[in-house]
Amino acid sequence: MSLAAFFNPKSVAVVGASREPAHPGHVIFRNLTEGDYEGAVFPVNPKAEELFGHKCYDRVTEIKEPIELAVIVVPSKVVLDVLGDCKKKGIKHVIIISGGFKETGNLELEKKLCDFLKKSRIRAIGPNCMGVLDPYSALDTIFNPHYKSDRPGQGSISFITQSGAVGIVILDWMGMKGYNISKFISYGNAADVDECDLIEYLASDNTTSVICAFLEGAKEGRKFFDVTSKLSKKKPIIILKGGTTSAGTVAVKSHTGSLAGSAEIYGAAFKQAGIIQAQDIEEMFDFARVLSTQPMPKGKRVQVITDGGGFGVMTVDWLTKHGLELAQMQPTRLNKLKKLFPPHVVVRNPIDLTGDATAEWYQAALQEALEDPNVDMVALILLLQLPTLSPKVVELVVETARESKKPIVVISAGGRYTEVLKKSLEDSGIPTFSYPERATMALKKLEEYAAFKKAK
Amino acid sequence: MSLAAFFNPKSVAVVGASREPAHPGHVIFRNLTEGDYEGAVFPVNPKAEELFGHKCYDRVTEIKEPIELAVIVVPSKVVLDVLGDCKKKGIKHVIIISGGFKETGNLELEKKLCDFLKKSRIRAIGPNCMGVLDPYSALDTIFNPHYKSDRPGQGSISFITQSGAVGIVILDWMGMKGYNISKFISYGNAADVDECDLIEYLASDNTTSVICAFLEGAKEGRKFFDVTSKLSKKKPIIILKGGTTSAGTVAVKSHTGSLAGSAEIYGAAFKQAGIIQAQDIEEMFDFARVLSTQPMPKGKRVQVITDGGGFGVMTVDWLTKHGLELAQMQPTRLNKLKKLFPPHVVVRNPIDLTGDATAEWYQAALQEALEDPNVDMVALILLLQLPTLSPKVVELVVETARESKKPIVVISAGGRYTEVLKKSLEDSGIPTFSYPERATMALKKLEEYAAFKKAK
Repeated sequence: MSLAAFFNPKSVAVVGASREPAHPGHVIFRNLTEGDYEGAVFPVNPKAEELFGHKCYDRVTEIKEPIELAVIVVPSKVVLDVLGDCKKKGIKHVIIISGGFKETGNLELEKKLCDFLKKSRIRAIGPNCMGVLDPYSALDTIFNPHYKSDRPGQGSISFITQSGAVGIVILDWMGMKGYNISKFISYGNAADVDECDLIEYLASDNTTSVICAFLEGAKEGRKFFDVTSKLSKKKPIIILKGGTTSAGTVAVKSHTGSLAGSAEIYGAAFKQAGIIQAQDIEEMFDFARVLSTQPMPKGKRVQVITDGGGFGVMTVDWLTKHGLELAQMQPTRLNKLKKLFPPHVVVRNPIDLTGDATAEWYQAALQEALEDPNVDMVALILLLQLPTLSPKVVELVVETARESKKPIVVISAGGRYTEVLKKSLEDSGIPTFSYPERATMALKKLEEYAAFKKAK
Repeated sequence: MSLAAFFNPKSVAVVGASREPAHPGHVIFRNLTEGDYEGAVFPVNPKAEELFGHKCYDRVTEIKEPIELAVIVVPSKVVLDVLGDCKKKGIKHVIIISGGFKETGNLELEKKLCDFLKKSRIRAIGPNCMGVLDPYSALDTIFNPHYKSDRPGQGSISFITQSGAVGIVILDWMGMKGYNISKFISYGNAADVDECDLIEYLASDNTTSVICAFLEGAKEGRKFFDVTSKLSKKKPIIILKGGTTSAGTVAVKSHTGSLAGSAEIYGAAFKQAGIIQAQDIEEMFDFARVLSTQPMPKGKRVQVITDGGGFGVMTVDWLTKHGLELAQMQPTRLNKLKKLFPPHVVVRNPIDLTGDATAEWYQAALQEALEDPNVDMVALILLLQLPTLSPKVVELVVETARESKKPIVVISAGGRYTEVLKKSLEDSGIPTFSYPERATMALKKLEEYAAFKKAK
């Protein structure tokens, strides 16, 4: 059965919609009613008359309207009763937020749950999860109050996570940064829907262009390998693996009840399946942002443009460390630029526009680099603090980049002024990085994925 | 001659204090007059009558009052004339912001400058630099407008950099983050004052507890090694080395005119001299923040406390990867905590307070960990998005940590709400990190430095 109703249901019942403000069920119901979600919402709470102006029901079976999705936020011991009601009511999709299953050692209850789901053919996300955020439908089952946790807008990166904790941090951080998403799914113990189901669904999802996963261990290793091998050429699959050392493995076992395999085994399997492996959360989204916004490069030659010598040096360092190459622009173009700039500007690779760079110099240098057949990608370093550099440079870079079919990344770091302008670049589809190391690593992964896609 | 007048002069002349708002001399003079600097300021500009209400002078020799420091922001070809005037006026300290010396290939002018400085016994920072920011005296020669570039407040980390570009980015970023400093010095081509002079000065500077340097190449390798070997046990010296690959070396040569040695040679020499080497800018300040705020640990055993299982797993992973150990708390304490918490809380290492953690649970767990003789350091993971977790947790953690003589780091990531609370922790002397990898690496460096200091 399709998973679509998890993301765009016409109606949602929140079972356990408490009146207690710190209760997850309360926050979820509140977020659904106060947000932009346009479907019908029904609170289920036998102890309350109404919540946020909505009549409360004792159980889902009492709701007259059809329910496409139930979000279950009740103590673990009554989850099966609630599921029984869901079956009676004909609900086919449920998200079980509740914890207290195998992750706390309650293997028996987990097994009962799995058996029930299998028999009843109800599709379930969870238990022990945060559920779903879909900015397109505005469905939001995340139980963190909005004031404590930012939410990303509509984009094309989808992210799945076993760990709810990692999930909320990422969601909040992406919201603040302006990194937008297609779908966020925290699927917890995976009693029914697992990483394979989700990756298959996202591979066919129109608004998803890159699939990211934080994975502690795959439920079925062989199936996971087959699914990802089949789909990794269709869309980039980026995985951050938790629990890779032996001490980490023990910790994983305690908190999701699944055993993590060794780092080496996973690393080798990922590589063979065409999966892009990230080393940390930020790197996962470095890769995702570049892969979801930039065209495929034809080769590994990078032109660096900078207004700060030290940053140019570091970028060259990291490019070569990561196995990329310094582009050699055509002499005619370099001469053209030399005539345009004052003599102290260094025109080679990097092009160093120096501390009196202007927005127009950036535009000219970027344009020549993008048009040069010896250049495959551009790393543009923008130190926006310079007195001569107008914020107009952001518009000019966006315009110039729009005409091009070559990948561009911007490296820019600083304080509040810089962060505001970086967000504006990010909104226009140009990935920004604070440091050369991260930017060049992301370009490297883009280049590798392009080569992988091209290879038979 | 002491370098003190570079940081706390009674009077400053800005030579080249232009009326043009984008001119560095304009911005510097403006920042000095509008900021909290309490010394006398004198604009030198033969083409203007007055600037921001201050009478302009044709040359420094016309100023009647004594001048302790001249900041020179004129075209390179007139720098020597200005220095001649400075000598006549009896000025003993100058900061030469102007570029156009060896970094642009003008070796002859650089040599003339060096010769003049040597003969006249004027102490100079620069040329081709940003100069000095000292939040204690409020001296600020940074030519970036305040609206484009944040400034850090009073702290105990000092930072020196050859590259002005790297310098301004760091300054701006530290300002935004609330990472405070003792002194910032961008010294450019080092025609006179070099990294050795500065490190020696900072080692005796009362408000400096940690010395950081971004270094492309040492002017005199042997001297640098001797100076740092002598001082590294007195105060931690953290270095980020630019220009470490061969392609990077060529780029360095072009932009500061000095040749960078190989990464291996520097790496080995740094290690022998007791220098802590950082791999990137963020890591340099990760180390600096921990070393400047935390006590020395007695060993390498770390207790992890978390409210998110996934983050606990990652932290354990990185601790062991970095060569630290998981602390084993005393059974009596663990049992005490078990009685205090509901049964789903996992009390071992990590202590996982789970998704319904409260501020009081954190306080209890932290207190027991800090009092436990089997624990040398604590890594506290705070996912502040949880509905049950009050922002009061910040105060409770600060209070509990204050009683202790053990290092603590906080790992906390998210969006705007989290960033505000992290800044509050940082202000109270508790270093915060977004990710386990960085936090654990910083603890590792702290542990290494403690062992280095203890060793004969």
